[in-house]
Amino acid sequence: MTESINKLAHKFSKLPGVGAKTAMRYAYAVINMSEADVEEFRAALGDVKHNVRYCAECGNFTETDVCEICRKRPSDTICVVTYPKDVVAMEKAHSFRGVYHVLHGTISPLDGRGPDDIRIKELLARLDGVKEVILATNPDVEGEATAMYIARLIKPLGIRVSRIAQGISMGSDIEYADEVTLSRALESRVDL
Amino acid sequence: MTESINKLAHKFSKLPGVGAKTAMRYAYAVINMSEADVEEFRAALGDVKHNVRYCAECGNFTETDVCEICRKRPSDTICVVTYPKDVVAMEKAHSFRGVYHVLHGTISPLDGRGPDDIRIKELLARLDGVKEVILATNPDVEGEATAMYIARLIKPLGIRVSRIAQGISMGSDIEYADEVTLSRALESRVDL
Repeated sequence: MTESINKLAHKFSKLPGVGAKTAMRYAYAVINMSEADVEEFRAALGDVKHNVRYCAECGNFTETDVCEICRKRPSDTICVVTYPKDVVAMEKAHSFRGVYHVLHGTISPLDGRGPDDIRIKELLARLDGVKEVILATNPDVEGEATAMYIARLIKPLGIRVSRIAQGISMGSDIEYADEVTLSRALESRVDL
Repeated sequence: MTESINKLAHKFSKLPGVGAKTAMRYAYAVINMSEADVEEFRAALGDVKHNVRYCAECGNFTETDVCEICRKRPSDTICVVTYPKDVVAMEKAHSFRGVYHVLHGTISPLDGRGPDDIRIKELLARLDGVKEVILATNPDVEGEATAMYIARLIKPLGIRVSRIAQGISMGSDIEYADEVTLSRALESRVDL
């Protein structure tokens, strides 16, 4: 292959989950793109790098100092998530109308990440006038530990702290649910 | 998500096999790349589009008028492949030392692709002094049809025409081989 193709494939291979073969496929696809498409691609790469930063309030990606959600929504309910992509997932559910707080990681002593390595201090600084903090970290060991840690800090302040429910996924099959999920679903059963 | 992130994800989603979620993951990865990495990425995109063209001889990708393989290797044996990526695969096998001819497609009447839509004329124009043409199109319906069509054109010229062997893949299991492959492997059995 030519030098330029190899170089571009090498760049693509730095993207998450992209191996050498996929990177080469992407590079070939670029050869067949129109000149205009490639220019737009290049501009889009530059724009993301130059325009995107963290919201001064919630830590989500934004192109202004404070993101649109923080500017427009009532800030008395904060939903705490791990990463910006979790905000995207929550917003798709169209069920939450408050603001978010992005931790940018979890507490994980095994990996040497403590409370000071994620945005917990920034969360505590936002609690004035807040009525409820919803913890929407992942239902895995690190996400649970992070949620428990934050709950223990905030509950004494007299603010309601809740955790998103765990249970059987909609449309899934009880037969194939793992035991932990199933036992959580039983514990959290709701009266009808 | 911000406008810039959406735009970049949209560009990534034009790559083969990249859906909306993967595209978004790639866009996030770009945010975390260093400024220098993003600039190199942009330069690599432009270079591929501006420097890469088809070799005037074989039709493979090149950055010079005639590719390195055509310039340096004996041209009395031509290996005919479908796409440039097949040249990469063949070269990795380190078994062929002649030159290639890239058809850039197969004959497929059902899709309205005839012999004039792929580089067969260009192949015929290269046959002066050629001793053997090896047909390395894929062992599927279109690849077989294309190989048969080319063989029928070239054999009458007194040039040896061969087809790469079909059989059980190295390291695979006879138990799981499909019947067509297995019957081909039997037909093409080799005396020991």
